[in-house]
Amino acid sequence: MEINTIKVDSYPSSEKIYLNGALYPIKVAMRKIKLTPTVTYENGERIERPNDDLVVYDTSGAYTDPNVTIDINKGLPRLREQWVKDRGDVVELDGITSEYGRMRLADKSLDAIRFPHTIRPLKAAEGKKITQMSYARAGKITPEMEYVAIRENMNNAELGIESHITPEFVRQEVAAGRAIIPANINHPEAEPMIIGKAFSVKLNTNIGNSALLSSIEEEVNKAVWSCYWGGDTLMDLSTGNNIHETREWIIRNCPVPVGTVPIYQALEKVNGQVKDLTWEIYRDTLIEQCEQGVDYFTIHAGVMKAHADLLESRLTGCVSRGGSIMTEWCVLHNQESFLYTHFDEICEILSQYDVAISLGDGMRPGSINDANDSAQFLELDVLGELTEKAWAHDVQVIIEGPGHVPMHKIKENMERQIKSCHEAPFYTLGPLTTDIAPAYDHITSAIGAAQIAWLGTAMICYVTPKEHLALPNLEDVRSGVIAYKIAAHAADLAKGHPGAQVRDNAMSKARFEFRWKDQFNISLDPARAKEYYVQSHGDNEKFCTMCGPNFCAMRITQSICKEKGDK
Amino acid sequence: MEINTIKVDSYPSSEKIYLNGALYPIKVAMRKIKLTPTVTYENGERIERPNDDLVVYDTSGAYTDPNVTIDINKGLPRLREQWVKDRGDVVELDGITSEYGRMRLADKSLDAIRFPHTIRPLKAAEGKKITQMSYARAGKITPEMEYVAIRENMNNAELGIESHITPEFVRQEVAAGRAIIPANINHPEAEPMIIGKAFSVKLNTNIGNSALLSSIEEEVNKAVWSCYWGGDTLMDLSTGNNIHETREWIIRNCPVPVGTVPIYQALEKVNGQVKDLTWEIYRDTLIEQCEQGVDYFTIHAGVMKAHADLLESRLTGCVSRGGSIMTEWCVLHNQESFLYTHFDEICEILSQYDVAISLGDGMRPGSINDANDSAQFLELDVLGELTEKAWAHDVQVIIEGPGHVPMHKIKENMERQIKSCHEAPFYTLGPLTTDIAPAYDHITSAIGAAQIAWLGTAMICYVTPKEHLALPNLEDVRSGVIAYKIAAHAADLAKGHPGAQVRDNAMSKARFEFRWKDQFNISLDPARAKEYYVQSHGDNEKFCTMCGPNFCAMRITQSICKEKGDK
Repeated sequence: MEINTIKVDSYPSSEKIYLNGALYPIKVAMRKIKLTPTVTYENGERIERPNDDLVVYDTSGAYTDPNVTIDINKGLPRLREQWVKDRGDVVELDGITSEYGRMRLADKSLDAIRFPHTIRPLKAAEGKKITQMSYARAGKITPEMEYVAIRENMNNAELGIESHITPEFVRQEVAAGRAIIPANINHPEAEPMIIGKAFSVKLNTNIGNSALLSSIEEEVNKAVWSCYWGGDTLMDLSTGNNIHETREWIIRNCPVPVGTVPIYQALEKVNGQVKDLTWEIYRDTLIEQCEQGVDYFTIHAGVMKAHADLLESRLTGCVSRGGSIMTEWCVLHNQESFLYTHFDEICEILSQYDVAISLGDGMRPGSINDANDSAQFLELDVLGELTEKAWAHDVQVIIEGPGHVPMHKIKENMERQIKSCHEAPFYTLGPLTTDIAPAYDHITSAIGAAQIAWLGTAMICYVTPKEHLALPNLEDVRSGVIAYKIAAHAADLAKGHPGAQVRDNAMSKARFEFRWKDQFNISLDPARAKEYYVQSHGDNEKFCTMCGPNFCAMRITQSICKEKGDK
Repeated sequence: MEINTIKVDSYPSSEKIYLNGALYPIKVAMRKIKLTPTVTYENGERIERPNDDLVVYDTSGAYTDPNVTIDINKGLPRLREQWVKDRGDVVELDGITSEYGRMRLADKSLDAIRFPHTIRPLKAAEGKKITQMSYARAGKITPEMEYVAIRENMNNAELGIESHITPEFVRQEVAAGRAIIPANINHPEAEPMIIGKAFSVKLNTNIGNSALLSSIEEEVNKAVWSCYWGGDTLMDLSTGNNIHETREWIIRNCPVPVGTVPIYQALEKVNGQVKDLTWEIYRDTLIEQCEQGVDYFTIHAGVMKAHADLLESRLTGCVSRGGSIMTEWCVLHNQESFLYTHFDEICEILSQYDVAISLGDGMRPGSINDANDSAQFLELDVLGELTEKAWAHDVQVIIEGPGHVPMHKIKENMERQIKSCHEAPFYTLGPLTTDIAPAYDHITSAIGAAQIAWLGTAMICYVTPKEHLALPNLEDVRSGVIAYKIAAHAADLAKGHPGAQVRDNAMSKARFEFRWKDQFNISLDPARAKEYYVQSHGDNEKFCTMCGPNFCAMRITQSICKEKGDK
């Protein structure tokens, strides 16, 4: 199969720039927004004063670099491949080793939908520790660490903004488990990024076909689209057919780390029959996906047999798919969850590819009523145990959190997570702060996400307007990403992330000076801002529609300054 | 002129109900949502269990009562007229008394756009104190107070939910100045509502023509529309032509309190020339609007001559229209603001109609950079002084607040306001928690509004997606109102407002039981929720699109319960 090359617009008035590393010959991709000059008239003379370009974080990868030829059928440039190989601690396998992966490869009928380039997977060499956490603990700063340090700072040094974020600081945070750099050695196309409370707040987007609704091309398109708008990581939650092949297309073309929930695919392999799930099928699924390059797995290993009873007092039971699957498995088999009992083996596998674990919160509340109950917090304690086990294998860990939580109960979530999970990064889904607004859950949850991110949550998982109602289309993805960029950035401002306010100040200055084009270009969604403006404006850019010429406060303020100056 | 009768849909599966007063023969309008039964199959038998109807707060007035004939040319039923007259402390004037109002009335060319029914204004009888605050201080519970007590509680007593909100409690809060019931005796069409931190959080919407963009019919339509979606009060910010006549149409047809900023109209009267503004013109404008029935005035009396210098260190100067007008006036005349110097006289006038004051924050920050600066807080101290002056006249007061504030600076705003302004209710515009998302400022500001409302802000002023870009159309009003209903309700949940969670629980139960129609009907925007669902669903209502049949966590939970039960 050949699929059409995805095309996203380049950002307006923007240039892709690459900042150089000092420790390594790396080039960190950023976006530079060019601003127009400030124009004033003084004694009848037109004076132009230039405004500094604005450098912003850029998650769009090569798709917005006009100098890179994009061909979805070949995949993105393999940025990290040489870094990984240069470390000399991995081996290239002869081919994929998972039973399922080999079966799919042997099936000629799938050739039509297969990604056309076969890549031989890498794996840790015998006895080698190859995770970012293991390097960090050994005192080694990797190119990935330097990359994220530069990326987090943008051009803070040039602007004279002090920042605690150095490559060495990154190393320390990763070593301590307070931050992760999800970077499977088999996904060298992804640009390194870091998730941790000392860094800018990240946002995850979800895509995934389910029940035959989506095609491969659509899913790849959605992945690129979500990166364009600002997604920092991407979870592929596909549950339909051909998810193995779809995933390959997505990973090869995705400039951000990709996560999955392997139990979904394992369940597909047993035709949706929970009772037929086995550790062996799950294990093979892990290897299949590790070799493809998935950067982090959601694993609901904290869902235990004893927890099933706790659901009964809830209004909405269990709302985690993975959680409900594992709970049902425990009940049906009257056995402890194989994810829990085999957790060390899971870590052993993941450590050979540097796949991070996102410990799933199978007991997260699904309603305001169920927030902060004993099922939720008992599981959180188990996740804390598992975090220590994973760290013993140098496997990077983040912890998933709710969900649905009223504002006054948000803080307790963060405090307990820090305590129970030893400061491993928190990664929450919202939370939604009320249940009464389906069709607007990107807003109900952005309210909660901004708060919990300010309190220390490192990554927030976006929610689209269609949550609880339907699968999101491209416009919903855009709305969800922007709502979450807002929440993340509001939290960065509140946390005092170095340089966060530079962009706000540039916007405010442009606003005060009626530089409309700059206002559009600085904004999170330039196209939409411009569209709204153009719909209702004539040529006069010297006042907004809101107030009219006699009433513009900013115009009046400027004339006050002038009047005072004239005296 | 005759304008077309506005038509809004009735709410789906809903009935307008009227709860009876115990102290007065009043009928408090509420909305009852009828829910479908829960259906289960037990031993092959279909069992239906009814779900309680849900009673919710209703701001839509008679427009959603099929038993009331709506005729915009006649105005709404005059609900409070008899209550006011029964108190025996008002006189009916022979006609309007403001100079400007009489001039407009004498202008035959305006007949074509004039509201067709002339109403003789009421005013306090000589020596009588007729504000809700004066009654409250005198220990008298009014029908308005009983009305709001019932309205706040919905059917809490029936549900067995304890509530502190009794008519006597309402009286105490109004007497103490901690809450206001904006209720001009000349706006008897409005249903009483209360603004105070001990009550549910309210939201204000803004409408208003500017620069010839809107017609009268459009503005009335927008007013009704914003009430339909949930606006609790309505500010008419018109600054164009015929604002006197437009206002009359709006007030006569508005079921919620109406506010204005009289300085806007005063400025129109002097053709936009700030230097020509005088106390006399402003005073006549107050009387004109008091007689029409405006329920609260935004008055920027805290903007003082000395403040002008403080703006210079700001990135965005003054962003309040009223504030910038008064600052310019002070600078041009080198005099103290006439709003400040004549404040007692203003209160004297307003007390004769029970018009409340919303003390405008002319120095509110217009950017993240300018938040919580000395200009802002110095003005807040002045607003505290003025609050005490107003209270000396038994005039009800609320205090306006920002604006643009990063999350970590929100709490200080609330704490200072309580201290400086003696617990008078706070009424904030957002605040926006970042400046970088024009076209999404309903979201940037709902994040801030939810937080400040939780901390004690009594009313939040909505922001639409077009803020900073253009005037809102009907869809923008809807988006803005819903975003703010979400913020207000999230705050009610967090504050523990009695009965707030009943609606969330009804939604959660409907969700767990796959009662899709109930989910739509319980939601803040039933039409949109249903639209999203219908767009992508077939007939199968037993699982959402999100997960597909094998993966629905709620369905699995139900089967776990069943499996456990079967053992």
